Amino acid sequence: MTRFVRDRRIRFSDCDPAGIVFYPQYFVMFNGLVEDWIEQGLGLGYRELVLGRRVGLPTVRLEADFTAVSHLGDPVDLSLEVERLGQRSLTLRLECNGRGGDDLRMRIRQVIVTTSLDSHTSIDIPSDLRAAVERFMP
Amino acid sequence: MTRFVRDRRIRFSDCDPAGIVFYPQYFVMFNGLVEDWIEQGLGLGYRELVLGRRVGLPTVRLEADFTAVSHLGDPVDLSLEVERLGQRSLTLRLECNGRGGDDLRMRIRQVIVTTSLDSHTSIDIPSDLRAAVERFMP
Amino acid sequence: MTRFVRDRRIRFSDCDPAGIVFYPQYFVMFNGLVEDWIEQGLGLGYRELVLGRRVGLPTVRLEADFTAVSHLGDPVDLSLEVERLGQRSLTLRLECNGRGGDDLRMRIRQVIVTTSLDSHTSIDIPSDLRAAVERFMP
Amino acid sequence: MTRFVRDRRIRFSDCDPAGIVFYPQYFVMFNGLVEDWIEQGLGLGYRELVLGRRVGLPTVRLEADFTAVSHLGDPVDLSLEVERLGQRSLTLRLECNGRGGDDLRMRIRQVIVTTSLDSHTSIDIPSDLRAAVERFMP
Repeated sequence: MTRFVRDRRIRFSDCDPAGIVFYPQYFVMFNGLVEDWIEQGLGLGYRELVLGRRVGLPTVRLEADFTAVSHLGDPVDLSLEVERLGQRSLTLRLECNGRGGDDLRMRIRQVIVTTSLDSHTSIDIPSDLRAAVERFMP
Repeated sequence: MTRFVRDRRIRFSDCDPAGIVFYPQYFVMFNGLVEDWIEQGLGLGYRELVLGRRVGLPTVRLEADFTAVSHLGDPVDLSLEVERLGQRSLTLRLECNGRGGDDLRMRIRQVIVTTSLDSHTSIDIPSDLRAAVERFMP
Repeated sequence: MTRFVRDRRIRFSDCDPAGIVFYPQYFVMFNGLVEDWIEQGLGLGYRELVLGRRVGLPTVRLEADFTAVSHLGDPVDLSLEVERLGQRSLTLRLECNGRGGDDLRMRIRQVIVTTSLDSHTSIDIPSDLRAAVERFMP
Repeated sequence: MTRFVRDRRIRFSDCDPAGIVFYPQYFVMFNGLVEDWIEQGLGLGYRELVLGRRVGLPTVRLEADFTAVSHLGDPVDLSLEVERLGQRSLTLRLECNGRGGDDLRMRIRQVIVTTSLDSHTSIDIPSDLRAAVERFMP
């Protein structure tokens, strides 16, 4: 399966009083990864999609497993794979691993729908986004 | 089942460019609800538990469904129920509803383990926390 | 001078790996205080102002002094005073103190302008907001 | 004066319901810039400094001017210069500009002190940090 991977370092602002990633911060990191994937992995304009065409990408379902902690300063890899491409939704597999290894920190299965940002109701995945995701998948 | 409920208003800082709650922010809100529950619902000192006794409460598993959006300024109720009390873990049911109604915005099933903040390994739920949770449950 | 005060407890999510408030989080707290002040102190609808009438309240100038740290669990008072009411701007004095005392943690002098959220250019302070601020001041 | 510069794109999670950067988020961005500067600009280990040697770098004074808004997707440059190196403090000049230009969005003058993370009291700037800052300055 095709993977989109970006590295990142765990920042001071990601961490809690225990010195490890405050878990909601993982979702912020992966929100950024999805932006990068759309721009760099799919070759579409993220800003144009959201602001220009008013297409929203809200999450409707999320499952996350946290298997090991990440500490301040840890170099990590954030990765994304597409599990399923539906008519109005997309299922992503996201993982945070220690840099360059199989040292899994947490993983997410996330279902995203395409919506109109004006009505907040679901719409069909725009055809250029669909075609780009199909090219990205195996 | 016993419920711990706190109301809250959706703040400007909770919202994204679409004018609705940025979903990781729900997890921040519920992290605060769990703090209030330990203090006010269970009658334990949260600060003493975390800083004094070095007990961590990390999340190991999370399932979330987002069923309707919350807008800037919306009054909402955040609620917590205990689904299961294990030896070293606790399963919570969390919900965000529109104030005073059954207008579900999102719900979470969250498994929390008790850990040592020094070793980051799991420990048995401390006996006073266990007793307080048992009193809270039906 | 009239003060608008709200209490708050320092939350886990406010704190950094040093166990004290991560300083940008103070600005998030005070952003919420300004919302509460508009709603409860001035008696105006914050949501209506921002979303309905498209009035923005961006910060153009900020000075902050951090004099003592706030720890996880600390009960604090957040207070607001109006230093100056201009044609298109408002200067606020904000303070975070330990609950009920003169135990200053940090203070801010903040200049806010009223803007159109459509053009992002400054506008005169709306007359009902101006009248409410005048009633609030000595 | 020597400048340390890093580029960044304004992310969805940086923005507020007005579609522009929520201003506390600038301080989070610059906190990351200071980390990168210590690592890459000064050649010191940030994690080792904070976690290993327990040196804190809290802000004691901050002045910020916001001159233009940054929108979702904007490419920006974050820059850092050292204005003054004291015995126990450091004054930084930070700027956010549109990528590659003199399109100033906001600037900060920030005084940071070195502290012991155990006592939260100020300490002399460690000699290796001082020497690295002196090499960085003109």
